[in-house]
Amino acid sequence: MAHAADIPTPALVVDLDRFERNVATMAAFLRARGKAFRPHAKTHKCPEIARRLIAAGAVGACVARLSEAEVFAAHGIRGLLITTPVIGATKIQRALQLAIAAPDTIFIVDHEANVRDLDAAAAAHPGVVLNLAIDLFFGRTGIPPGEPALALARAITRYARVQFVGLQSYDGQAAHTAPFTAREVRSTGSLARAVDTRRMIEATGIACPLVTGGSTGTYRIDSAIDGVTEIQPGSFVFMDLEYGQIGGPDSADYHDFEQSLHVLSTVISRPPGLAVVDAGFKAFSTDRPFPPAPVDMPDLTYAWAGDEHGRLDLSQSTREVRVGDRIAFVPPHCDPTVNLYDQIYAVRGDRVEGVWPIAARGKSQ
Amino acid sequence: MAHAADIPTPALVVDLDRFERNVATMAAFLRARGKAFRPHAKTHKCPEIARRLIAAGAVGACVARLSEAEVFAAHGIRGLLITTPVIGATKIQRALQLAIAAPDTIFIVDHEANVRDLDAAAAAHPGVVLNLAIDLFFGRTGIPPGEPALALARAITRYARVQFVGLQSYDGQAAHTAPFTAREVRSTGSLARAVDTRRMIEATGIACPLVTGGSTGTYRIDSAIDGVTEIQPGSFVFMDLEYGQIGGPDSADYHDFEQSLHVLSTVISRPPGLAVVDAGFKAFSTDRPFPPAPVDMPDLTYAWAGDEHGRLDLSQSTREVRVGDRIAFVPPHCDPTVNLYDQIYAVRGDRVEGVWPIAARGKSQ
Repeated sequence: MAHAADIPTPALVVDLDRFERNVATMAAFLRARGKAFRPHAKTHKCPEIARRLIAAGAVGACVARLSEAEVFAAHGIRGLLITTPVIGATKIQRALQLAIAAPDTIFIVDHEANVRDLDAAAAAHPGVVLNLAIDLFFGRTGIPPGEPALALARAITRYARVQFVGLQSYDGQAAHTAPFTAREVRSTGSLARAVDTRRMIEATGIACPLVTGGSTGTYRIDSAIDGVTEIQPGSFVFMDLEYGQIGGPDSADYHDFEQSLHVLSTVISRPPGLAVVDAGFKAFSTDRPFPPAPVDMPDLTYAWAGDEHGRLDLSQSTREVRVGDRIAFVPPHCDPTVNLYDQIYAVRGDRVEGVWPIAARGKSQ
Repeated sequence: MAHAADIPTPALVVDLDRFERNVATMAAFLRARGKAFRPHAKTHKCPEIARRLIAAGAVGACVARLSEAEVFAAHGIRGLLITTPVIGATKIQRALQLAIAAPDTIFIVDHEANVRDLDAAAAAHPGVVLNLAIDLFFGRTGIPPGEPALALARAITRYARVQFVGLQSYDGQAAHTAPFTAREVRSTGSLARAVDTRRMIEATGIACPLVTGGSTGTYRIDSAIDGVTEIQPGSFVFMDLEYGQIGGPDSADYHDFEQSLHVLSTVISRPPGLAVVDAGFKAFSTDRPFPPAPVDMPDLTYAWAGDEHGRLDLSQSTREVRVGDRIAFVPPHCDPTVNLYDQIYAVRGDRVEGVWPIAARGKSQ
């Protein structure tokens, strides 16, 4: 397939020029700040993108789940950090196999029973030591920073087959807090508690080389904090409607990165006054309170029309829309939209330069 | 894997006893009414389920998209009806290949230019005749019933490589109209127009053997209508929170079918007052205004907590919830939830009897 016009719809399309600028911008910014860059692959689930990020300077990739990590490891990606605890005997056995194949993988924990289970499983594999970071609680998962986290760090040092490596310090609410000034207050507050916890841990003689966190919304804020060692943004590669609205330091819009991701659709029916496209609940995630936005057609508004369809009301429009016309949309939220597709069409201008498998799509286990 | 306790979460699980009763109930009801049964496979996207429905008496399967049809045809399913028009030269070429492999496939059209394109493409394959049904407009896609549809039926008869077979008469809004009496008014009105259109067409000497439509919500209503030949329900195999609320002829709940589909999750973190499960926007579709419902735990309420997580507030509960506990949920809306998973675990009691590939998952093209 050479031409974008031949892409079968509905399809996920990335504009390579914009994508490459997004990658270069983030990598250069974090390099200049002296922070490690471990971008979160839950956004793209695509080994080709992970490879490109590593080529730009990333130290590896965060992943949300063990099954994602297995896919990326099988594709040769190293420097994996799994940002969800691994719970249950069967998954812990899989985690051991992963650690044998990719020994620098970091797992997170938030209670001692899980540490004990991981250590016990590792005992069956002499020489294997699991890298553990403690997940700090800022509203979703984890253990409270401060004394509880310190106690858990101490506990980890008592087990022989696990090694404490640092703190997972992700405040999910901070990423989308608007405006920028409120985001700054929230993220700075959370990460200050992470850095304090690091100090408490190191004061006891336990090394804590890693404090990792941050997001596309907070990378400027978080990378300015001494003691934070690493930033793990995800959405900046693609962006979406929501991230476009969170506001920057000097603007109501968020301009740090470009909208590189689109869903391409086709008009498949033209009842009187309507254009119906072939993209509905199975083509876009619906977890945000606004619909997809047609690209370069501000006079048209998308309305959900079921699992397979979207509706554009033409009754107030003078625009000609015909069956077969192709309309691109900016998705409301990139991560769960990407998770609906098996591949991304990588496009430069009208040319398809690659079709990248979303190899970890659906890998939530 | 023998035991349900070993299923890695998040996972899609079907209760086989309930599923089998749902299939038997619908098949027996439509058989008694003398209507053909062509269940919509966009709900399950699973060839194993299509095979079981055909074994129960279905004449084939509706599918929403060409790429779904290709998957089901490759798995040996025949009697396919594609309920979305096939638009664009590349897809029309694929439609021809499908019609060669599965000659009884029915395609839908709603304007003559598409008929002309299909006919022209078929000319390259001597002996191939495409079966076309006209999609009637009841609010989403299609051509208005009555004179416009009649004119299109006449137009179809002027092309040599296509054959008019009937009317696709699906009123998507009717399926979820509540209460039952309002649903009855709406669906009866729509299908009366379809049956009138059939009469107009047959009065001109054009045979119209097929009038197909209906849904899990309207099958009782639609199957009572003379001139409707076939019912195409989908969700009855699984059910979901929304269908549970549409009301029956004698009740506010809808009891015709049993809730057979669940999403199984695991508690992965227990911050103070909270249980966090491993199922969020990537584990459930979010297109309905209510969250997933925990099975057999009416005291707990699920709250969305992002792409990968859900939150159960335990602050008002005396229930013991521990990390590692498994909690099943009824999804708000079955079709787009199924579309997130690669497989369905088919469970009877505590035993996994099968792991069925959702082979057409993501096939929206």
